[in-house]
Amino acid sequence: MALQEEHAVNRAIQYSTPGTTETCITELPIGKPGPGEVLVRMLYSGICHTDYAACTGTLGRAPPVPAGQIGGHEGIGEVIEQGPGVTKPVIGSKVGIKWAAEVCINCDNCLMGAESECTSLKVSGFYHPGTFQQYLITSAVCATPIPEGIDLAGAAPLMCAGTTVYASLKRAHTKAGDWVLITGAGGGLGHLAIQYTKAMGGSVIAMDIGSKEAFCKELGADYFIDFKKFGTNEEVIAHVKTLVPGGVRVVLCCAGSNKAYEQAPGFLAPRGTLVCVGIPVHEGKPGERVPLFDLSSIVANELNIIGIKSGSRQEAKECLDIAAKGLVKTHYQLRPMDTLTKSFIEMEDGNVNGRIVLDLR
Amino acid sequence: MALQEEHAVNRAIQYSTPGTTETCITELPIGKPGPGEVLVRMLYSGICHTDYAACTGTLGRAPPVPAGQIGGHEGIGEVIEQGPGVTKPVIGSKVGIKWAAEVCINCDNCLMGAESECTSLKVSGFYHPGTFQQYLITSAVCATPIPEGIDLAGAAPLMCAGTTVYASLKRAHTKAGDWVLITGAGGGLGHLAIQYTKAMGGSVIAMDIGSKEAFCKELGADYFIDFKKFGTNEEVIAHVKTLVPGGVRVVLCCAGSNKAYEQAPGFLAPRGTLVCVGIPVHEGKPGERVPLFDLSSIVANELNIIGIKSGSRQEAKECLDIAAKGLVKTHYQLRPMDTLTKSFIEMEDGNVNGRIVLDLR
Amino acid sequence: MALQEEHAVNRAIQYSTPGTTETCITELPIGKPGPGEVLVRMLYSGICHTDYAACTGTLGRAPPVPAGQIGGHEGIGEVIEQGPGVTKPVIGSKVGIKWAAEVCINCDNCLMGAESECTSLKVSGFYHPGTFQQYLITSAVCATPIPEGIDLAGAAPLMCAGTTVYASLKRAHTKAGDWVLITGAGGGLGHLAIQYTKAMGGSVIAMDIGSKEAFCKELGADYFIDFKKFGTNEEVIAHVKTLVPGGVRVVLCCAGSNKAYEQAPGFLAPRGTLVCVGIPVHEGKPGERVPLFDLSSIVANELNIIGIKSGSRQEAKECLDIAAKGLVKTHYQLRPMDTLTKSFIEMEDGNVNGRIVLDLR
Amino acid sequence: MALQEEHAVNRAIQYSTPGTTETCITELPIGKPGPGEVLVRMLYSGICHTDYAACTGTLGRAPPVPAGQIGGHEGIGEVIEQGPGVTKPVIGSKVGIKWAAEVCINCDNCLMGAESECTSLKVSGFYHPGTFQQYLITSAVCATPIPEGIDLAGAAPLMCAGTTVYASLKRAHTKAGDWVLITGAGGGLGHLAIQYTKAMGGSVIAMDIGSKEAFCKELGADYFIDFKKFGTNEEVIAHVKTLVPGGVRVVLCCAGSNKAYEQAPGFLAPRGTLVCVGIPVHEGKPGERVPLFDLSSIVANELNIIGIKSGSRQEAKECLDIAAKGLVKTHYQLRPMDTLTKSFIEMEDGNVNGRIVLDLR
Repeated sequence: MALQEEHAVNRAIQYSTPGTTETCITELPIGKPGPGEVLVRMLYSGICHTDYAACTGTLGRAPPVPAGQIGGHEGIGEVIEQGPGVTKPVIGSKVGIKWAAEVCINCDNCLMGAESECTSLKVSGFYHPGTFQQYLITSAVCATPIPEGIDLAGAAPLMCAGTTVYASLKRAHTKAGDWVLITGAGGGLGHLAIQYTKAMGGSVIAMDIGSKEAFCKELGADYFIDFKKFGTNEEVIAHVKTLVPGGVRVVLCCAGSNKAYEQAPGFLAPRGTLVCVGIPVHEGKPGERVPLFDLSSIVANELNIIGIKSGSRQEAKECLDIAAKGLVKTHYQLRPMDTLTKSFIEMEDGNVNGRIVLDLR
Repeated sequence: MALQEEHAVNRAIQYSTPGTTETCITELPIGKPGPGEVLVRMLYSGICHTDYAACTGTLGRAPPVPAGQIGGHEGIGEVIEQGPGVTKPVIGSKVGIKWAAEVCINCDNCLMGAESECTSLKVSGFYHPGTFQQYLITSAVCATPIPEGIDLAGAAPLMCAGTTVYASLKRAHTKAGDWVLITGAGGGLGHLAIQYTKAMGGSVIAMDIGSKEAFCKELGADYFIDFKKFGTNEEVIAHVKTLVPGGVRVVLCCAGSNKAYEQAPGFLAPRGTLVCVGIPVHEGKPGERVPLFDLSSIVANELNIIGIKSGSRQEAKECLDIAAKGLVKTHYQLRPMDTLTKSFIEMEDGNVNGRIVLDLR
Repeated sequence: MALQEEHAVNRAIQYSTPGTTETCITELPIGKPGPGEVLVRMLYSGICHTDYAACTGTLGRAPPVPAGQIGGHEGIGEVIEQGPGVTKPVIGSKVGIKWAAEVCINCDNCLMGAESECTSLKVSGFYHPGTFQQYLITSAVCATPIPEGIDLAGAAPLMCAGTTVYASLKRAHTKAGDWVLITGAGGGLGHLAIQYTKAMGGSVIAMDIGSKEAFCKELGADYFIDFKKFGTNEEVIAHVKTLVPGGVRVVLCCAGSNKAYEQAPGFLAPRGTLVCVGIPVHEGKPGERVPLFDLSSIVANELNIIGIKSGSRQEAKECLDIAAKGLVKTHYQLRPMDTLTKSFIEMEDGNVNGRIVLDLR
Repeated sequence: MALQEEHAVNRAIQYSTPGTTETCITELPIGKPGPGEVLVRMLYSGICHTDYAACTGTLGRAPPVPAGQIGGHEGIGEVIEQGPGVTKPVIGSKVGIKWAAEVCINCDNCLMGAESECTSLKVSGFYHPGTFQQYLITSAVCATPIPEGIDLAGAAPLMCAGTTVYASLKRAHTKAGDWVLITGAGGGLGHLAIQYTKAMGGSVIAMDIGSKEAFCKELGADYFIDFKKFGTNEEVIAHVKTLVPGGVRVVLCCAGSNKAYEQAPGFLAPRGTLVCVGIPVHEGKPGERVPLFDLSSIVANELNIIGIKSGSRQEAKECLDIAAKGLVKTHYQLRPMDTLTKSFIEMEDGNVNGRIVLDLR
């Protein structure tokens, strides 16, 4: 096939020394898709905070990935070859690759749409090759069709960040008119959460460091809170209650911050819902505090607390459809493949507006 | 009116020395119902663990009730007089009195059916006269109609214990075929939770001290776990997973026990739901641990944690309807009015099967 | 009280000759609110198509209203006196009066939030005095609080038209990204339905007569269909499928038209939902066809068909909250009290954009 | 492989002359499973009323099946060979074959769990070989795992009849305490619907011809109505309202009867749900009436009408789990392969209690 001649190699970014931010670009052979699989030529991949955590070995209690790991779990590409038995997605179609690289579609968890809990789950970029490479083989069923008319580079972060915040809002039963408080509102997850909330008719209190205020307001946030301006948890909770008397209906914790989780139940109205999205990078490490919720705060106001790792195939589809209608736009900086380490270091400071996307073409 | 002559007085049980289990019986005048209110001649009242906690001052961070407080919040009586403007419930009808003694029906929380979060809530037996008396005035809208053909003494505990566990199962979206693990399964709440779960087609793992095994199995529990037989949290979690591989769909924590809350997330299947019902009596006291949930256990399996204080008017109605069909039977000991203190002392030991009900006639 | 002196009379519009569009203005005494009631000084009332039908005796199988009937069921006023036992709404607060003038709050239907099915329902403007008058007594519990910052004349049509279409979209589980087809899109109900759909993140196909195209598009409709341009049902169904391949998720039939109901199931995607809102005025009259749905169209695509009469107190609150945030604006013409008959005649032609509102001040 | 030698042939039942009830048994070669497929040795297949309709050409507007069609769509077998790329279900495991023989898992309908609306759907026994044969090739993803401890012959009818009525009750949001009226209650669908309703804690009014009364009551029906004893629709509706004042919450129309559909809306309480399951065999034929619902009955009580063709993979799993717990038992007559025509003729009379199951071993 002509393809194999034109592109003799697959350039891939590997984590050279897990435990550090070091990466390198290697040339690898291009594989053949097996039954039920497709070969995808990758175009773009977003960089998620979890990639940083995997590379640097700061992802909670997870064991370190091996040297040579190819990371990345939010990518967009084009199907260029179908394995035996595959009829969809068709060759030439654009597809998204997400957290769940392989799911069985048949276990109890998959059947109820909890595919990120599949008992045979393989995860992109964790002990399974991810999206930081030019060619990738994936199970056809996990290749999410990309709707027409969407910016492809901007669609990459929707495969993880977008799908996760959309799923969070949906599982929290957010509806038009609801107030939603978003922590880490100016980051990769948060800046999309603001827009999905507004698309659903909700109102937003964005919380982040002060330098993100203008960005959050441009995206539609109704109020902005610079959490650094408040001394105690009680003070910031009181401030939220002056903005929305009675408290908000939903809190989306996009920030992986102990402080944010401590305050979150206090922001909520009775029967409100806290969705736990961001995981503190030091979480579970010896000597570090783990975010904890005490029983009294949950019972006193009959709160709901929901944990979420990632969205399902259906949630990814809905997330993309909303963006394809122009209701949500990813804010990103497009960078060449050799800038992953540099990008990881910038992300450490928490000072990136929106998302960084790698150009894999 | 003849009534006032026949029954010159209202015999009521008062907490004589809040902070202890001491109570006394007093004779009080019988009041007149105002607009929107009804006068109810009480017949029976269950004794809830929260009454014990209110009397002994062990209810978390709540301030102590005043001396003379009339407790009780799960009672059954008969309407004997309507205040101005009241057309329902009619005179002679049986009604139930529950936790929410007065709600506004109009605030944001009431409108969404979260009446126990009413912004003008008055609670039976806490700073508002409760059901441990022979006559009681209540808002007509909070007097729950009792369906025909139900045992009235047995219906009393349904007004709090029954409604709360029924609401817990409903809010957790329990459905036929689901496995439900119930802690404190042999107690006032738990023994009803077993039966409501079975009525819904669920399967039950009952957890309690060994002496309650036979009782729980008679009520329909599929498995019984004597939690005292297990050394560590890990051991009891592993045992649950041998009974129900993959974990249970719902955990109902009826036991007000730190230990139970520590273990609960471990029992759950992915996307499972923990409903927090029982509140440890020492909760919030200086030097005592508060039950805590750590973020990792919630996110790893995408769990839901729900706090619940009490059921709504609609949930009470549904709870009673199911019992009236014979699907649930309260197990209780009927005792005279002057045994409240004695009953509190027995409840301290956690050794009562089902519920104690006071005969107020 | 000064009030009674200042305003010696209540000017009210009565249907003089039910069966025709004739009305007259009468002066009536101002009543006193009883227990649980409030006296409201009315400010504005929308005119609903159902008012026209009641006045002209064209409301399906309903018996004719008596001469002297005061119509109207979507009004806004100010509380000026509380009856015995009433604490809320407070004097001076703005409240809305809707279809359900009196509900018991306690029957099975009320308890589940189906208040327009209350077994003791009294309906504003049908055998119970409505909102076409300057003073009105209503049960406090049915007086919907009006949020701050909303245009009061524009809020009047939200009490029926707005609440009904909002409830329709909510009961149909409309979510961001969904396609919604609205028939009668330029009318009183439809023009609000367009906006509520857009507020929820949905996309709209508006269907009406050609002269309403510009109006519908200004309100946010993505596509407009002039149904008069199509010969057969099959042609218009085929056209919808070219706009949204696979069909739409929700059809809102705001038009009381047999034709619209015949076509509606054909517009839907599998598992889609048809909400029946508009009722043909001739429906049920001898010699007239009644809209019918055949079993095959429902089963073939596993459709849902939902009937709706009006929204609940909670749905009215949510509807108002969304409008108060500026997401929805009623388009109305404000007219003096003596123009009701003239307005009815204009409505007959179906050529009014948005709603007519009477100024009752 | 030994298999091919031992069983040289696949005995299959074919419709010899579509348009009649004639069938014959043929010997066919056993195929090889392709990528993503498994070869299943069939053990049992239920006979559904839809098989009868397909064979006799009475299935509504569907074109006649070709001569030689192998029917059947509720079967149980054992996996004996996996095609390339298949890891589950494992060889030796028992699986169920249902209506949806092949679905894409990826289209919009599949993603939302509406697999019987898959845009690439192939249906067992309709233009695609069904379960009336000894060997069958199916897509691995559509082979439903059968839980341990279930009677395999009895499980066959659960794959269509059981799954469909379970899905009907679930989609109608049936909950403990609800009244459900089931038409055709003594038949293949109905006798399972009675049991699933009872398993969920519901109460049942069973409706059928008088000879089925004892059977329905043994299965748990609370009331039985012999519909032949009532002259008019109004009379039978009035009778239902004496049994359950206010009407039932759910009507399951298992009977493919115009009469049943005409009466059904009248049985319902406000906001109740009618699930359309049975399809009249003559439906859509020239000169025959089609069941119709008129708008007034739907709007007056704010009813829901739901069409259903079949359950999803998840609904089939839940249906089987409930039966495996002993809460539901199929009543069936096991018959040899050569009795299909005879069975079709008996079914014509509507006088079979429960289901007929063919022994394919």
